[in-house]
Order: sequence, then structure tokens, then C-alpha cells
Amino acid sequence: MSLDAVLARIDDDLPAATERLLELLRIKSISTDPAFKTDCDAAADWLVADLQSFGIEAQKRATPGHPMVVGHVGPENGKPHLLFYGHYDVQPVDPLNLWDRDPFDPAIEQTDAGPVIRGRGAADDKGQLMTFLEAFRAWKEVEGDWPCRITFFFEGEEESGSPSLVPFMEENADELRADFAMICDTGMFESRTPSIVTMLRGLLGEELTITAPTKDLHSGMFGGIAMNPIRVLSRIIASLHDDQGRITIPGFYDGVPELSDELEAQWQGLAFDHSKFLGDVGLSVPAGEQDRTPLEMIWSRPTCEVNGIGGGYQGDGFKTVLPSQASAKISFRLVGDQDPLVIRENFRKMVEEMLPADCSVEWKSHGAGRASGTPTEDPAFAKCLKALGDEWNVPAAYIGCGGSIPIAGHFQTILDTPPVLIGFGKDDDQIHSPNEKYDMESFHKGIRSWARILDAIT
Amino acid sequence: MSLDAVLARIDDDLPAATERLLELLRIKSISTDPAFKTDCDAAADWLVADLQSFGIEAQKRATPGHPMVVGHVGPENGKPHLLFYGHYDVQPVDPLNLWDRDPFDPAIEQTDAGPVIRGRGAADDKGQLMTFLEAFRAWKEVEGDWPCRITFFFEGEEESGSPSLVPFMEENADELRADFAMICDTGMFESRTPSIVTMLRGLLGEELTITAPTKDLHSGMFGGIAMNPIRVLSRIIASLHDDQGRITIPGFYDGVPELSDELEAQWQGLAFDHSKFLGDVGLSVPAGEQDRTPLEMIWSRPTCEVNGIGGGYQGDGFKTVLPSQASAKISFRLVGDQDPLVIRENFRKMVEEMLPADCSVEWKSHGAGRASGTPTEDPAFAKCLKALGDEWNVPAAYIGCGGSIPIAGHFQTILDTPPVLIGFGKDDDQIHSPNEKYDMESFHKGIRSWARILDAIT
Repeated sequence: MSLDAVLARIDDDLPAATERLLELLRIKSISTDPAFKTDCDAAADWLVADLQSFGIEAQKRATPGHPMVVGHVGPENGKPHLLFYGHYDVQPVDPLNLWDRDPFDPAIEQTDAGPVIRGRGAADDKGQLMTFLEAFRAWKEVEGDWPCRITFFFEGEEESGSPSLVPFMEENADELRADFAMICDTGMFESRTPSIVTMLRGLLGEELTITAPTKDLHSGMFGGIAMNPIRVLSRIIASLHDDQGRITIPGFYDGVPELSDELEAQWQGLAFDHSKFLGDVGLSVPAGEQDRTPLEMIWSRPTCEVNGIGGGYQGDGFKTVLPSQASAKISFRLVGDQDPLVIRENFRKMVEEMLPADCSVEWKSHGAGRASGTPTEDPAFAKCLKALGDEWNVPAAYIGCGGSIPIAGHFQTILDTPPVLIGFGKDDDQIHSPNEKYDMESFHKGIRSWARILDAIT
Repeated sequence: MSLDAVLARIDDDLPAATERLLELLRIKSISTDPAFKTDCDAAADWLVADLQSFGIEAQKRATPGHPMVVGHVGPENGKPHLLFYGHYDVQPVDPLNLWDRDPFDPAIEQTDAGPVIRGRGAADDKGQLMTFLEAFRAWKEVEGDWPCRITFFFEGEEESGSPSLVPFMEENADELRADFAMICDTGMFESRTPSIVTMLRGLLGEELTITAPTKDLHSGMFGGIAMNPIRVLSRIIASLHDDQGRITIPGFYDGVPELSDELEAQWQGLAFDHSKFLGDVGLSVPAGEQDRTPLEMIWSRPTCEVNGIGGGYQGDGFKTVLPSQASAKISFRLVGDQDPLVIRENFRKMVEEMLPADCSVEWKSHGAGRASGTPTEDPAFAKCLKALGDEWNVPAAYIGCGGSIPIAGHFQTILDTPPVLIGFGKDDDQIHSPNEKYDMESFHKGIRSWARILDAIT
């Protein structure tokens, strides 16, 4: 095959590819709002038709929620079977008044940083999803056939928690299992370095409510003699980190691995500009463990954060209440082999041991998921890195992701298919916010990147 | 004069006195709700007419809010000039469905603990206010004249912050100044010991908001590297008390006096049942300074309480936000000569010195009032104690009050008139709550107490 011919075809077809993306962006497929149910259906139909238009057997598949789109093509030829995942649903658009254009009347806009495709879903995830569709379209036109077995798998509920995904995967595991699940829903490191996300932190969510007196009291009458649950909760939270930023829960660091030499070297090469990363949100000092690098803090080290706290009177003015209860939502990002269930048990035990007389604690659990790491020994990974580096003229890297992408874990655990997270989003894409955009560069070079990857690993 | 004759007259007149109180209770004088403006006016008119009915020159006096009622009577005869203060306004009645009767259709109800007068304002403060009116009515009927110069001063805004009180006092200081301001708006110690409140704690209210990042962040992306303001705030709150329950703000205890031997002896005599006091609200262990008695904790020692805290996501479920801000409302109860302005300065300085890099704090002040203590050297105080003890057959005591009664301070500072806080409320009167009541015993013996006091100090 001739990669150059495919790349040339991609370049020539860019205006038409852009028009196709704009068409898809006009469909108001907001999954979380039932008012847009037919729009979600229409987006699924559009994708089925588009896949069929260049020869892929594709179907809309019903679920209790919005439909899946599944398509298959290509020979079982001993090459890796590749699954491509994306989602056609988008976030709601409010507050609408903060948009500079109708979010569902997308257009190409010229900016100082180059042309962008502006509209809801441009980056998350319709634009990204279309990168591999367009790569395959060009491939088919130039080559006339397919390099390997290929499965397309699109869902329409990613922005509303993917309730149908796991059952659908379980019911259709044999059909969907592949050698790699290519997921195009992430970004470039610092908007410039193409990356494969191979480390995803796990998440343990805990909510605790401390009760001291059985009802709210008057702080004049009871202040000084009655235990105040806000004070108790504050002491607990203050004790969760030592003065070096380490988390103090017994056994918390069991199973936390050190970075491999390879990753350490790659991450040093990334020259992460933490001053800019923090400066953009008004901060300057990395606040995590004092003996760790900023990239370790966000990718490879576990954390404990308080996501919410509340107790007593929070309205305007002042009320001299001594409250009965105070509560907090606390989450832990987990790495390596940390066991969320053990950590939950140790955390709760530590808190309960700190409780003074007369106080009780109630717990709510908000999920417990392990970290997931993708082993990169398979040569396909190195080939993907090289293909990405060739396209972007920057060495590509394996990176971490501080957040959790549950879908990646599902591919691994349900389908035994290692996820390969490659995406072309940039930090200023405003996903989930007004004025979402996708750089034309992301779209164009994204399409070309997939052609190179396909060429490299098949 | 014959005290016995006055007391007998009070006993005979109790049914009629009760009818008069019920009449006043039927007036819906809720001061905080503009819908009841004419009712407040009607309550003032009722009081003017009642005072006039037994020979007191009384007037309704306009303010920007609800009117004052002022009346004068009696000779300047070298005896103490006594001012009597009460308020005719009442709290709102919601939630109405928790009342067992119409709050403005008051009645005498029989209970296991004896008859009670049930209705909004029965205890706070119409019933208490009527105790001294009825005492004077009986006095006048029996004696035919007055024992000393007497001023009546009633307001109709006590339940809505008394906005007109200070200006009115300032404008009419010469008219209102007296030797003692008798304030009937407090209760009996543990519902059984007649008391004069001589120690009122002051109050300093502070609100702080800590900002770390300039906007809410995703805790996956930024958790572990960005400073979390809830953690910072929790550390600050946790540091405000040491492990002995002492407050750690530098200089905080400057001006905090030790109890006099007399008070210490009296308070020991009160045999305060802190197990019951705390047990009623589900607690058992006095949570204040470990080397202080429970009564000291609530009356004569300063406190630091967190009245409210908030930050991040507090709704149902979980949101992995790393919030930009967290805030708390913190109040200090002050005693003796503690200077609220100095404490405010030291508190703010301490907090600011604890702030990590990248954090800022904003302050709101919610008032700063010194403690007020009434010196009891004047023999009139001992005479009041004895008169109360005689009526209730229990030695009366000087007690503290954990809360603040700003009005008492205004009499002292604006009118140079020492406040004498004597009241007959009981702990289960349900003031400010549904089913408010005033014990018939409180009403009857309250009236008799005033006759005895009048006899004793004039």
C-alpha cells in the first residue's frame, strides 16, 4: 500500500470531510435530556449511513437508552483486529448566553491560532470520532480494501454516564472482542505532544456525616460545652495529610509503584510546564507530596481530596447555631495496585478512632475503582508512538491521566481488550463549556495520524 | 404599706389578670413581617390603654419601625427610679402545622406539670411583661399611690433586631435614664431557681472565605497538585483549639477574669445538672476547657465556635470538583474585659500567617460586642435576690447567660442605667417554636415577685 497516497487523499478530501463533520455537529444529540431523544437517534442513523456509504456493514442497535452503532469490516488476516470507539452524544449547551454562536449551527472560524471548527461536540467527541472514519474512508478509496479486521463501536450515552455500555458489552462480548480498543476521546499533552494515555488513576469516593448533638443548638446557650461536629470534621480532614503532603491513612501507599526508568525519562522529556498549568488557575506551588515531580503528582501518585464540605448555617449574614451535623465528600485517586476496598476500610477505621465521645459517623460510598494501567510491551504500542511522532514532528509519549475514564477499564475487564487511548484534543477546546471548538489542525492531522497508525501496525 | 395585702390582691385578681394577658396574646404582633404592621400598632395601643387604665401617663411614640410605648408615674422621692422594659412583639408562628392550637387563640391548658398559658408570645415576652404591669396594678389598688418614680418602656421590634431602639434611646436619654432598668425577658435557672443574670457574654462574629485556585477544578486533572481550600480551612479550624480545649489565638485570654469566691460558691450551690443539660441533646461529655466546670464553660469562659462551613459540592451524589473557595462562619463568645477588636485582629493575623502560598482570605465582620457584667455591689441587688428567694422558697442566684442580650448593654452604655435581668421563663417554654407556653406558676409567682421586689428596694 502507499501511505503517501492515502495521506494525499486525506489532504484533498479535507473540505468534504469538514462538511461531513459539520453535518453531524448540527444534530442536537444531547443524551442527558430526554427532549433530545430523537436527535440522538438521528445521530446514530447518520453514523450508520456514513459507515455504509464506504462499504462498512453497520447497524443501529437498540439499548434501554440511546442506541449503539456497531459496524464490522475487513478480513481476519492474522493482523491485529482493531476496535474503534467513540461517542456521538454531546453535553448540554447551557448557559446558552455565553456562546458566541448557536452551538448547533457549527462553522469554521479563523482565530489567531489558526482555523477551528466551532460548535457543541466539535472536540467531544464527534470531531475526534470522525478522524478515524475519515482515515478509513481515504484508505478504502486509495487501496480498495481493508488492512485488517475492523470493528466500529459508538455509543450515545457517554455524557450521561454510559448506563447501557456495560450490559451491551457483556451481551455482545464475543462480537466486540478485539486485539486493541482504539479510543479517540483524549487530548495532546500540553496541546502539542501526541500521546497515548497508559495510566489512569482509580477513584474511591466516600461521604461522611458526623453527628454530635441530636439537634441544632444555640451557640450562646451551648457554646463551650457541647461538642461541635464542624470542629471534629475539620480535625479529621486536617489529619489526612502530613506536613510533607503525604496521606496518613495506615497502609495507604501499599501497592503504589515507582515509575519505570523508561517512563521517568519520557516524562522528563515532556518538559511539563507546571508553572503555566498552575498559573492558568491562579496557583504557583505544586501542593502535593514534596518529594515528587508535578507530573507524578497528577498522574502516578495517589491523592486525597475534599470535594465538598458543609455544616451549620451557610446563608447570608450570621446565625449563632451550633450544628448537629457536618459532612464532607472525600475522594481518593488511586494508582498501581492500591486496593480501594482496603483503603476504604482503613480510612473509615482511622476516622472512627479519631471521633471524640458523643460523636457518631455515617458513611456513604460513592464508588470504588482500581487504577488501570495499560502494559505497553506489545510492539504495536511503540509503532503507534512512532506513527504519531512522524505526523506531528514531536516525539510522542506515554502519559498518565489524573482522572478516570471508566470506559477504558470496561474494555479491559469485560472484553479483555487493551485500550489504546489516542486523541487530538487541546487544552483550550472548551469541552463541556460554551464555545467548544476543535482545531482544524487536530482534525486534519488526527485523520492523518490514524492512517499512519493503521499503516504501522497492520 | 402592706406587702401581704398586695400579694393577696394579686392572688384574688389572677383570673382577671389572666384574661387581660389572653387579650394581649390575641393580637398578632409579629414584628418581622410587614403584613402584621397594624397588629403591632394595635398591641402598642392596647398597652397604652392598659397603663392608662390604672393611672399611668402613657403614650405611643412613633419610630421608623413599630412604635414604642413609654409611660411615667410616681414621685421623685429619693427612692430608686425604676425603668421596666419588655417587648410586645412576637416571633412568627410557622411552621403552623406543628402547633396543637391556633397560636393566636391562646388558652389555659392543664398539663401534668400544672396549668399553662398556651399561645405565641405567652412567655416571650407578653406574659413576662404583664407580670410587672399586674404587680403595679395590684399595688396601686391596695396602696392608692406609687412607691417611687417608675418608667415603663416597651418596644415592638425585639424579635426583628430592635433597629429603632438605639436611636430612640439616644434621642430620649434624659427621659429614659433611671437608677435601674428591670428587664423581664429571661428565665429561671434550670426552671426552678429564681435568678438575676449578671454576666452576659459578648460576641464577635467573623466570616472567612479562602480562595486557592481561581476557579473550580476537576479533581482528576488537578488533584494532588492544586491547593485545596477546604483542606486549608480545615487546618485553620483544627488549630483554633488545643487538646485541652483552650483557644490558641495569641492573647485570646487577656482580660478573662477568674470567678469571684462569692459567685463560685453560689454556682456550686446551684448544683447544675450538666448530665441532664447535655443528655437532652444527646451528649454526655462537657467539651470545653478540661479544667473548667460546666457552668464556667457556658457562662464565664470565652468560646470559639464554628457556626457554619461550606465549600465544593454539597448536593446529592458525588462531583469530583476541587473547589476554588471554602468558607466558614466563626463566632467567639467573650467575657470580662476581652476586647473584640483586638481578638479580631489577632485572629485574622493568625489565620493569615497559616495560609499556604497561593491562598488568599477574604473577611466579613458580623459584629463585635464586649461582654457585659452588672456589678452587684448596690444593696438593691441583694434585696432583689432575697425577695425572689422569699417568693420561690429557693435561694436565688446571680447567674450568667451564655448568649448575648444586646438590649442590656444598651441600657448600660446609652442610658448609664444598670440592667437588672429578672425573668420567670422555664426551659420548656418553647419560645420561638410551635406550642409556646408560659406556666401559670411563672405568671402568678412572677407578679408576686415584682411586688416583693418593689417592696424590698423602695
